Amino acid sequence: MSRRYWSDFVEDLSPYVPGEQPSNDQLLKLNTNENPYGPSPRVMEAIAAQVNDGLRLYPPPEADQLKASIAKYYGVETSQIFVGNGSDEVLAHIFYGLLKHDKPILFPDITYSFYPVYCGLYGINYQTIALKNDFTVEVDDYAQSNSGIIIANPNAPTGVPLALGEIEKLLQLNPDSVVVIDEAYVDFGGESAIALVKRFPNLVVVQTLSKSRSLAGLRVGFAVADAGLIEALERVKNSFNSYPLDRLAIAGGIAAFEDEEYFQSRRRQVIESREALVAELVKLDFEVLPSAANFLFARHKKYAGADLAQALRETGVLVRHFDKLRISEFVRITVGDEQQNKLFVAAMSAAFKSIL
Amino acid sequence: MSRRYWSDFVEDLSPYVPGEQPSNDQLLKLNTNENPYGPSPRVMEAIAAQVNDGLRLYPPPEADQLKASIAKYYGVETSQIFVGNGSDEVLAHIFYGLLKHDKPILFPDITYSFYPVYCGLYGINYQTIALKNDFTVEVDDYAQSNSGIIIANPNAPTGVPLALGEIEKLLQLNPDSVVVIDEAYVDFGGESAIALVKRFPNLVVVQTLSKSRSLAGLRVGFAVADAGLIEALERVKNSFNSYPLDRLAIAGGIAAFEDEEYFQSRRRQVIESREALVAELVKLDFEVLPSAANFLFARHKKYAGADLAQALRETGVLVRHFDKLRISEFVRITVGDEQQNKLFVAAMSAAFKSIL
Repeated sequence: MSRRYWSDFVEDLSPYVPGEQPSNDQLLKLNTNENPYGPSPRVMEAIAAQVNDGLRLYPPPEADQLKASIAKYYGVETSQIFVGNGSDEVLAHIFYGLLKHDKPILFPDITYSFYPVYCGLYGINYQTIALKNDFTVEVDDYAQSNSGIIIANPNAPTGVPLALGEIEKLLQLNPDSVVVIDEAYVDFGGESAIALVKRFPNLVVVQTLSKSRSLAGLRVGFAVADAGLIEALERVKNSFNSYPLDRLAIAGGIAAFEDEEYFQSRRRQVIESREALVAELVKLDFEVLPSAANFLFARHKKYAGADLAQALRETGVLVRHFDKLRISEFVRITVGDEQQNKLFVAAMSAAFKSIL
Repeated sequence: MSRRYWSDFVEDLSPYVPGEQPSNDQLLKLNTNENPYGPSPRVMEAIAAQVNDGLRLYPPPEADQLKASIAKYYGVETSQIFVGNGSDEVLAHIFYGLLKHDKPILFPDITYSFYPVYCGLYGINYQTIALKNDFTVEVDDYAQSNSGIIIANPNAPTGVPLALGEIEKLLQLNPDSVVVIDEAYVDFGGESAIALVKRFPNLVVVQTLSKSRSLAGLRVGFAVADAGLIEALERVKNSFNSYPLDRLAIAGGIAAFEDEEYFQSRRRQVIESREALVAELVKLDFEVLPSAANFLFARHKKYAGADLAQALRETGVLVRHFDKLRISEFVRITVGDEQQNKLFVAAMSAAFKSIL
């Protein structure tokens, strides 16, 4: 049996399971919070311009130009930017390089389910803090001994945002540990904590180009923090893989920050679609959590989440259901464009009839 | 001081330092073993065909099609293939998932300098085994208590190959530990151990598309091993980053295995250029180690390696020098195309005159 060759910890890992990526593109895919709109045409041009013999050469290992673009966009220094192969890789390096200490780290009981997986991978102790009944974060609950805190804002899979003032309070309560704010969905209506990086040397803000910049297929994420924290992440990254971002991802990432008009217009369209979809879901007897993300977390007054997800799957619509305490009644629905949302509402009405 | 926020081990890391990637493309770049030829036109077409709205979607997390292409090419099962963001990432997961046990792992004193870096990152004990005076591996030296063995074949930075029969002997001597053969350069004249995977459940062979397939800029590497070992790597990968290969890298990687004629012709050209360059270096009074890679490791009878590298740098030519025991007299020279090799020989002759 080849398990005897495994490093001991591997047996105990519970890997993250991402939403299905079907090869059948006839399905209406509202299960992994992708943007309904494609990336900016300027991103496509920038990538296409790099599809040439230059691919024989390694990328610049520090992706300096991409870092400089992001720094300029957010008004910070290049030394305050870390980039990685999607925000999942950025988070992995943060967990290992900044959150591995003796005391447990803290995060909500309902949040991005990759966080406990990273803890398993790196042997990090953690303790979950229950969200309130309305699925909001109570910052005072984090005023306890810890080795670090991570909060997704807006939270996943609920979409519920936390006000910037609350994050500031969280930082003030925890000057001795690193506080990570995971802003994968912030561009759809949350308030970014990047503005607080200057004042708090223990704050790390993580973002991704996968959602609001429509580049899930390109794998670019980044962190903004005090240069001293970024240095730790660079040390870990350069002990792991010198070149995590390929030449095409670097080119596309730079261009994504250069087309502000496209970004703003698509972002607004998603927000408008979300609000329209909330109204439709309410009409269909759903309770919908207040969302500042590009997805909705909703429970029906009559039908269970698992049944709804299954019934929708049978009509060719993918949404995500989590078989977890407190949220098993819910389904998570990615906000599509106007046409996709119409199809979804029709599919949902049909799904009701198919559930016995 | 923000170092107080770092995880303890970060302070002690000695990150890997890759060869310079200059932004000045007027330099003759023979320092990072890139292929002098661009990738196959079919690779470029396959990538270009994916530069569209589909980039809004996540890639298939397991990159199944790419795995299937590699498996077919080498006549193994898809379950025997692991893919990653360059072979450096693949190696990182191998070190953590398969080589972290109580006893030390073994590798040569002169080899790819990332190996001890991975050990530092994951807290793995290691012991180096001296290469013989002619820089070859003595397999019998590895018949000692260990938790794993890693051998680069051909070795880096020497280029010296190890015969397949010796690798088989190494495997027979070590049935209880994982033996990793890092074949980054094997296509330039080495013998691959992939054929041995069927017989040895403890063998992992690692390759990359960066060198012989001219795709350093795209970041694709892979491992071939018994499905039981691959499972460990998948568990680690899925606890780290669900989607390390972007849509463009997957498309380009698949196409790279579909243009065998291009691959063979460019590979042969590099081998021919290498042999021609050896003859030139010998004429210039260099001792050149026998190389089965796309680079040469050479020491001059009169001039020190550091001086040569520096003098070449001043004429616009980059080669690599390692300030390390046993090899500090050498320079490592990537094999260029005919024209680049001519420029290099001329630059070297000029360099001699500039060294006082």
